[in-house]
Amino acid sequence: MAREETQVLEAFLHRSVPLTKTMGIGVHRIDPSGIELGAPLAPNRNHFGGAFGGSIANLGLTAAWLLVHWRLSDRVPAPTVVIAEQRVVFARPVLRALVARAAMPDQASWRDFEGALERRGRGRIAMAATVEGDGEVAARFEGSFVATSG
Amino acid sequence: MAREETQVLEAFLHRSVPLTKTMGIGVHRIDPSGIELGAPLAPNRNHFGGAFGGSIANLGLTAAWLLVHWRLSDRVPAPTVVIAEQRVVFARPVLRALVARAAMPDQASWRDFEGALERRGRGRIAMAATVEGDGEVAARFEGSFVATSG
Repeated sequence: MAREETQVLEAFLHRSVPLTKTMGIGVHRIDPSGIELGAPLAPNRNHFGGAFGGSIANLGLTAAWLLVHWRLSDRVPAPTVVIAEQRVVFARPVLRALVARAAMPDQASWRDFEGALERRGRGRIAMAATVEGDGEVAARFEGSFVATSG
Repeated sequence: MAREETQVLEAFLHRSVPLTKTMGIGVHRIDPSGIELGAPLAPNRNHFGGAFGGSIANLGLTAAWLLVHWRLSDRVPAPTVVIAEQRVVFARPVLRALVARAAMPDQASWRDFEGALERRGRGRIAMAATVEGDGEVAARFEGSFVATSG
């Protein structure tokens, strides 16, 4: 995806969910296989100068949500995608900038999800993301999202 | 707890985790049995005018974390409390201000936690919180926190 397109998606994200702008979330890369987001430490710091657990969780959530949203955005009208459930396991503190990556689920799961969306106007998909700090995995995010036809 | 004391705790929260100030989180009430926090919709809104799932999750996390922190804050030095794991189930959208409540865990669990903190300098405690919008439970938060002696 061209740099200009990641900027358009980033502007959409900041406009849609203002907290993501406060968090300084940037779209580094998005393509049909996955997404990478980043965020600086300063607006996301906690009481001991590391990253706030809530910011770490939100960066994983946002990566997974934005990838699902983007993959469905050529549908007319675009479905609404919301989170239904999430689990986050925090493995280590983050003392620098954050990077989150989410990959597309396997093709069969995605086909089932799109099929349910087409047939019933509603589908559910499980997504995973990792959040890194200093190049090491700091947290693992797993979440289910529900898409509803607009 | 007197109004003045909730303001002191709120100022501590905003200073420690700046994102909680952006989210507009206020401390409504805290006492040895539990805590209630609130947040307005505007800084926490999502792409369809409801509350962002990440904000809902963070309000539950913050309620649980702040209660543990506060209950341990008379120890010298005060332990550091961080989140280790969380699960959030979202039951319904929130279209107005958010309210989160966390209660103290049962006394035996809390005693085990404080005992581990004293003996080994490290303890783990499971906490739960609910997040409401419009007086209905919108999400249930469950998380484990690890405290380490300072």
